[in-house]
Amino acid sequence: MKLTARTEFRRLPDRGSRDPEIIRAILDAGFLAHVGFSVDAQPFVIPTLYGHQGDKLYLHGSAASRTLRGLEAGLPACVTVTLVDGIVLARSAFHHSINYRSVVAFGTARKIEERERKIQALRVIAEQVIPGRWGEVRAPNEKELKATIVLEFSIEEASAKMRTGRANDDEEDYALPVWAGILPLRLEAREPVPDSRLPQGIRVPEYVLRYRRKP
Amino acid sequence: MKLTARTEFRRLPDRGSRDPEIIRAILDAGFLAHVGFSVDAQPFVIPTLYGHQGDKLYLHGSAASRTLRGLEAGLPACVTVTLVDGIVLARSAFHHSINYRSVVAFGTARKIEERERKIQALRVIAEQVIPGRWGEVRAPNEKELKATIVLEFSIEEASAKMRTGRANDDEEDYALPVWAGILPLRLEAREPVPDSRLPQGIRVPEYVLRYRRKP
Repeated sequence: MKLTARTEFRRLPDRGSRDPEIIRAILDAGFLAHVGFSVDAQPFVIPTLYGHQGDKLYLHGSAASRTLRGLEAGLPACVTVTLVDGIVLARSAFHHSINYRSVVAFGTARKIEERERKIQALRVIAEQVIPGRWGEVRAPNEKELKATIVLEFSIEEASAKMRTGRANDDEEDYALPVWAGILPLRLEAREPVPDSRLPQGIRVPEYVLRYRRKP
Repeated sequence: MKLTARTEFRRLPDRGSRDPEIIRAILDAGFLAHVGFSVDAQPFVIPTLYGHQGDKLYLHGSAASRTLRGLEAGLPACVTVTLVDGIVLARSAFHHSINYRSVVAFGTARKIEERERKIQALRVIAEQVIPGRWGEVRAPNEKELKATIVLEFSIEEASAKMRTGRANDDEEDYALPVWAGILPLRLEAREPVPDSRLPQGIRVPEYVLRYRRKP
């Protein structure tokens, strides 16, 4: 990942990072990305699942999807992943903030044509969303593979931005009788809801029961 | 909100909607948006907090922010809000999906110059993130207002997209011995972490203790 003006940090340099380990950890922890591209100067931002491996992100969707067809054509794209960690409650309105981690990645996407690579990329996406699932389910058949576009997005350049830790109030505001602190937020799984057509005796798998996003 | 080709539904029309009530409910339930804009054909997608009121979204940030300065210049923008509701576990890899709700809104932003409108917009953003907070904290002073850009994004056109409900498997797959169902996901608050410099006797407010995102 090279560095250009696209990921220069103009503001709050302490919140920005180009450390590949930090970028990797954020991309590993998420599963939802927002993909941006432009058609005739009109920007589009589309939410999509992704899988991360090395400096690649894998995206998939219907062969009829306008978004994927646009990306497949090699449009410059921006893929952003954001994890919300908490609300920062300061004494002043001004110092309120969000603890978060995000990665903004620039690059272009290419359609994966080769059958085995396509299946492999689908596996990476599935395992990113719910590790352990892929090996249990019926693999895609030829018709399904044909109906699915899988894109490989090569990260040419990426940067992370984050905020962690406590509220930073102005010194004179610490005396105010206002509660301050962090309200941690986290994407949590609730109780699994079994399908109504489940044959008898099929237990909820451990990877579903113990589902937890990586912090 | 008018309708043009930008929000035409090409695929899965059952998942798309232009119903203003559905769009409003999704925009009210979120607080994090991904804003897209292009500079010299390079798309950028930036996460940001927002406040929603009528057909306006309010965004704010530092007066030094490159993103806000770009948007303020009237670039065409796309603001997308996505809420993840659960993982859809089907018997086949192909029919796996995510239950979600999202809104893609197109429009342009304008800087709010007038002092009272600016404060009002900041209040809308704060109340979207944590209702009840604004009235308790020190209001912004003149210096802070000067250091903050507040943008009003007028939604010219918007569409919602969502998936709800159970997995839809192929008929022959229902006999497979694979657990299927929904794993609900939700952004949940954990226990508040009080600031280390909190004066004695200040209790955690109810709106923090009972914090819960609107479903």
